[in-house]
Amino acid sequence: MKAYVLQGGFGLDHVREVDRPIPSPGPGQALIRLRAVTLNARDIGVIEGFYEPDRTAPLIPVSDGVGEVVALGEGASKFAVGDRVAAIFTQSWTAGEPTRANWTSTLGSPLDGLLAEYAALPEEGLVRVPEHLTDAEAAALPCAGVTAWHAIAEEGRVGAGETVVVQGTGGVSLFALQFAKLQGARVVVTSSSDEKLARAKALGADYGINYKTTPEWDQAVLDYTNGVGADHIVDVGGGGTLNRSVSALKVGGRISLVGLLSGASAEGFAIVPAILRKARLQAINVGSREMFERMNRAIGQHGLRPVIDRAYPFERSIDALRHLAEGSYFGKIAIEF
Amino acid sequence: MKAYVLQGGFGLDHVREVDRPIPSPGPGQALIRLRAVTLNARDIGVIEGFYEPDRTAPLIPVSDGVGEVVALGEGASKFAVGDRVAAIFTQSWTAGEPTRANWTSTLGSPLDGLLAEYAALPEEGLVRVPEHLTDAEAAALPCAGVTAWHAIAEEGRVGAGETVVVQGTGGVSLFALQFAKLQGARVVVTSSSDEKLARAKALGADYGINYKTTPEWDQAVLDYTNGVGADHIVDVGGGGTLNRSVSALKVGGRISLVGLLSGASAEGFAIVPAILRKARLQAINVGSREMFERMNRAIGQHGLRPVIDRAYPFERSIDALRHLAEGSYFGKIAIEF
Amino acid sequence: MKAYVLQGGFGLDHVREVDRPIPSPGPGQALIRLRAVTLNARDIGVIEGFYEPDRTAPLIPVSDGVGEVVALGEGASKFAVGDRVAAIFTQSWTAGEPTRANWTSTLGSPLDGLLAEYAALPEEGLVRVPEHLTDAEAAALPCAGVTAWHAIAEEGRVGAGETVVVQGTGGVSLFALQFAKLQGARVVVTSSSDEKLARAKALGADYGINYKTTPEWDQAVLDYTNGVGADHIVDVGGGGTLNRSVSALKVGGRISLVGLLSGASAEGFAIVPAILRKARLQAINVGSREMFERMNRAIGQHGLRPVIDRAYPFERSIDALRHLAEGSYFGKIAIEF
Amino acid sequence: MKAYVLQGGFGLDHVREVDRPIPSPGPGQALIRLRAVTLNARDIGVIEGFYEPDRTAPLIPVSDGVGEVVALGEGASKFAVGDRVAAIFTQSWTAGEPTRANWTSTLGSPLDGLLAEYAALPEEGLVRVPEHLTDAEAAALPCAGVTAWHAIAEEGRVGAGETVVVQGTGGVSLFALQFAKLQGARVVVTSSSDEKLARAKALGADYGINYKTTPEWDQAVLDYTNGVGADHIVDVGGGGTLNRSVSALKVGGRISLVGLLSGASAEGFAIVPAILRKARLQAINVGSREMFERMNRAIGQHGLRPVIDRAYPFERSIDALRHLAEGSYFGKIAIEF
Repeated sequence: MKAYVLQGGFGLDHVREVDRPIPSPGPGQALIRLRAVTLNARDIGVIEGFYEPDRTAPLIPVSDGVGEVVALGEGASKFAVGDRVAAIFTQSWTAGEPTRANWTSTLGSPLDGLLAEYAALPEEGLVRVPEHLTDAEAAALPCAGVTAWHAIAEEGRVGAGETVVVQGTGGVSLFALQFAKLQGARVVVTSSSDEKLARAKALGADYGINYKTTPEWDQAVLDYTNGVGADHIVDVGGGGTLNRSVSALKVGGRISLVGLLSGASAEGFAIVPAILRKARLQAINVGSREMFERMNRAIGQHGLRPVIDRAYPFERSIDALRHLAEGSYFGKIAIEF
Repeated sequence: MKAYVLQGGFGLDHVREVDRPIPSPGPGQALIRLRAVTLNARDIGVIEGFYEPDRTAPLIPVSDGVGEVVALGEGASKFAVGDRVAAIFTQSWTAGEPTRANWTSTLGSPLDGLLAEYAALPEEGLVRVPEHLTDAEAAALPCAGVTAWHAIAEEGRVGAGETVVVQGTGGVSLFALQFAKLQGARVVVTSSSDEKLARAKALGADYGINYKTTPEWDQAVLDYTNGVGADHIVDVGGGGTLNRSVSALKVGGRISLVGLLSGASAEGFAIVPAILRKARLQAINVGSREMFERMNRAIGQHGLRPVIDRAYPFERSIDALRHLAEGSYFGKIAIEF
Repeated sequence: MKAYVLQGGFGLDHVREVDRPIPSPGPGQALIRLRAVTLNARDIGVIEGFYEPDRTAPLIPVSDGVGEVVALGEGASKFAVGDRVAAIFTQSWTAGEPTRANWTSTLGSPLDGLLAEYAALPEEGLVRVPEHLTDAEAAALPCAGVTAWHAIAEEGRVGAGETVVVQGTGGVSLFALQFAKLQGARVVVTSSSDEKLARAKALGADYGINYKTTPEWDQAVLDYTNGVGADHIVDVGGGGTLNRSVSALKVGGRISLVGLLSGASAEGFAIVPAILRKARLQAINVGSREMFERMNRAIGQHGLRPVIDRAYPFERSIDALRHLAEGSYFGKIAIEF
Repeated sequence: MKAYVLQGGFGLDHVREVDRPIPSPGPGQALIRLRAVTLNARDIGVIEGFYEPDRTAPLIPVSDGVGEVVALGEGASKFAVGDRVAAIFTQSWTAGEPTRANWTSTLGSPLDGLLAEYAALPEEGLVRVPEHLTDAEAAALPCAGVTAWHAIAEEGRVGAGETVVVQGTGGVSLFALQFAKLQGARVVVTSSSDEKLARAKALGADYGINYKTTPEWDQAVLDYTNGVGADHIVDVGGGGTLNRSVSALKVGGRISLVGLLSGASAEGFAIVPAILRKARLQAINVGSREMFERMNRAIGQHGLRPVIDRAYPFERSIDALRHLAEGSYFGKIAIEF
């Protein structure tokens, strides 16, 4: 089979297409033939050595993908050949609270990812995907979808009458916008582009703030909410936006921290304003299979469609990764096999 | 002013229109001129002596109403003359957990209710109502609206992808249907009338079950959910429907018990099936002012309109009460001043 | 190996010691040599045909046991030979919310139980047990311990200053007493025996009510709490005590329904009093492996010791079951191998 | 009456004893004669102009005190003359979620505080205190006690088997230690003084870390918990300790941010480690009257005694404030009238 492998160093220059034997599914595993993957900012972080700076072993990058079950290992019984499935990001986190050990089971680093024609994975790490989705749309779910669902529906329990702020128009943010609308919230989107704000409104956003022309977007949120502030802010800024998020927050409000995917790190964080908002900051690290399944149920019932910015063919995978690294997209970048 | 008073015995025959002096607002109180009230099954229970069988003092019945502030007592500062407000059902339950003491502050028994041209109430027991509502619609909120909101949004935290069952098409049930839809759930309605089921679908219900032609409605819910069961059931049957509600429930599901308003009492309750569903039964007794305000925020944002079955003029209040007692309505029965 | 088997009918007369081959551990399984089991009321229910009335296949009864790992199947890696482990009651419920499918994986019906010298079980269905416990004490944990932990610590989240009522002095109730004390609550125990009440106080109970001499024990709870009522009641009465539990409850209080183990069924349940207490009734069906592990952590830190009423040798297993069926015990009845 | 007033500038030099008329209780108010106050770091912040830098009006400082009701205003009915009561810090936050408006009702800034012989306060802003406490002990409750209770029992819901870390030995930290022990947790205390660590252990702490000799106290917490990390950390460091708190945290753990009282501000906050712990940071701003009452119930049941470092007579109030400003104490500094 064909696969892309990061080898001999870090950076996109060290990602190359190679030939590898098709893996055999072990006991309890399913062999899937990939149909589509989507990219996350984390994939660039992995390729650039941010997550495993000491790694020397070759790695198949990209964590999120959907495929068709083509063979089953001994004892595997959850799926049938022909089923369409997505891989969950944290393979061993099935339900309940995660543990440190779960973090060693994430796809695309440290485990091999899915930028390959086939992959053999434990059936416990797979889920069926809603039928109405294209392959690329279904491949958008594992990181961006589950992260947003975890933030909005599981930890956030966002409900009717609340105001939710999502930052930017990347994959997580657009899913968060869509899920918050499903649950009855009013959604404010920030972006540096009026054109993207217009597209976000077409997706359901109630209000857009261009943070380039309105850098004090926190004040704009306060104005929009009559001085009350937002109930929930999905902060994807990796720290660089946190103080403004706190400032824009309602007393008793919540911030979901999902900066990990952006590879970002830190900044000055003012505690006193957080206390004056009785703020809750909840870090979100994707989610469990149970959350994935609950999200799929909601997506299926509502016929919700993830937003694909652009789909590349498999042989142009490097171009797709470059597009991601350049940072200008609306929703998800996909690769189709 | 004119007022209806229950006096000299129980039953509708003992409810008469009388003349009374307009009350003066005490310290911290507001005097409101009533514009509309709506009726709840509880009001009939009160008139029939179900709640205070030993009461001999005269009582102005009916708990739910909306009016205009026309005068303010000393120190009252939350409202201005001219504001349109609703009275909260449990006058002293402002926020947090209730106490036994709160139950002695409910309007329409033991405290005087609102079937009168004027009422003087503590400003702490009043809330502004969404502007887009008619007076009758706003008067539908205090018991039926808040009870449904408490069940669906506060305790239930219903979200996208869940299935909610509401029983019948009375005031609480239709509000529960509307709130569950706002928060992204799929809603099943039961009724003895196909015509009411059709109207419920027009309000957003996804599925209707005629329990007269399908007495095993629990099985119909299981079939509709592929054998999984409902996530949340709003049980207004006062005990008579509880075992079927349990049977129709998903493992880990919830039942909101709101039978008090229907004046109903008890029946055989099978524990083992409840345990096999890991069922949670949450009794709901209307709600706090804080819940009322959160509900108003949601209603305002969504422009949601309560369902008024029919509105009577004040002088036909007895006819309105008789209509309620007969039990056939879709949504709320109102009285306009 | 020797094993007891229910065969050819229901009732203790159909439980017989037989010889069976020692099972081989399959892939992902561990073979354990049993050291101790303890009995639950459910085991009698199973033997009497209450749970699987149509079953004809032979069954090894008794769900709760502890043993030593003596062999590992292919790929099993969580435990080492020599480890002391308990089997979890619902073998497939590892974490998060349960599903209907989980209920088909309970030991001692429908799956074979542990009244045998050896058992082969999936390693996912086993947990290490706190070192300071004897084998019999450790064998008390899977049903009675986890059920009480689930009620008090997981769903109940009992804390300092609260008042908890536990009914009787069976296994679940004594664990609930112990866990509620660990978390700072005040505990009231009911019993028909002053001698058992004295023993419960020696275990930490703050107040005892003999429901034989004080049948209105709900009033006694109200008196003890200055009319406020209990925050949490663990109701093991299978329905027969539910109305008094509601009556004894604080407004906003909780009742844990754990009657399944007692095999009990139903009675008249009054809804209105439940609503006037804003009662929450939470049915508890043992718990997940995650809960078991959290419970073990608490037991280990506090050196808590389960209460064993009496331990029988394996060859007197029928006597032990008869003792259970007679219903007079304080804590758990054990069988040692 | 005698009162201390901050006037004409900021700093301890501008706090002077003055004579003022005894206030009259207004409608719904109670007049209390102060018996004891205790000091919080916030009081120094107020005196130094940190909270209201533009204020020019004179201010009676110090928020926390206990006194005897000596007169009642019109309509006040909750208390009787002679009752011993404490003032709640956020006078208007009675229950449920706070709002921005509540923050304008805090004692000792912007409202006058309690460093005076008498104060007239709304009865809604007062609570009875547990009888077994001395006046100074009872005066320790409003800020330090309620903050710790809010963190540990209300938001934290700390339970048996959990590990809680408290930083230092100030008022909040020692209360947090005591409450965490009441609810069954294992408690780790950090301090720069071995002598204080020894005293904390005498109060129930399980483990002490001297952060002067062990600056990598996060690693010490990880070692103590076998690499798992703490379930809950009460961070009073105002930002300076936050990254180490995150590092010491269990996956899924919680940090309570209570730095406001210390007047501290900000620092670099690393997002990625927080996400890898799925950390929840919950800012705590004292608490509601409802929380205060639940705390009192727990304190009363357990006979818990707050820790008073030293009590000064009223006429030495400036010395007491100076002691606080110097920063070396174990528990609370009190002033007795």
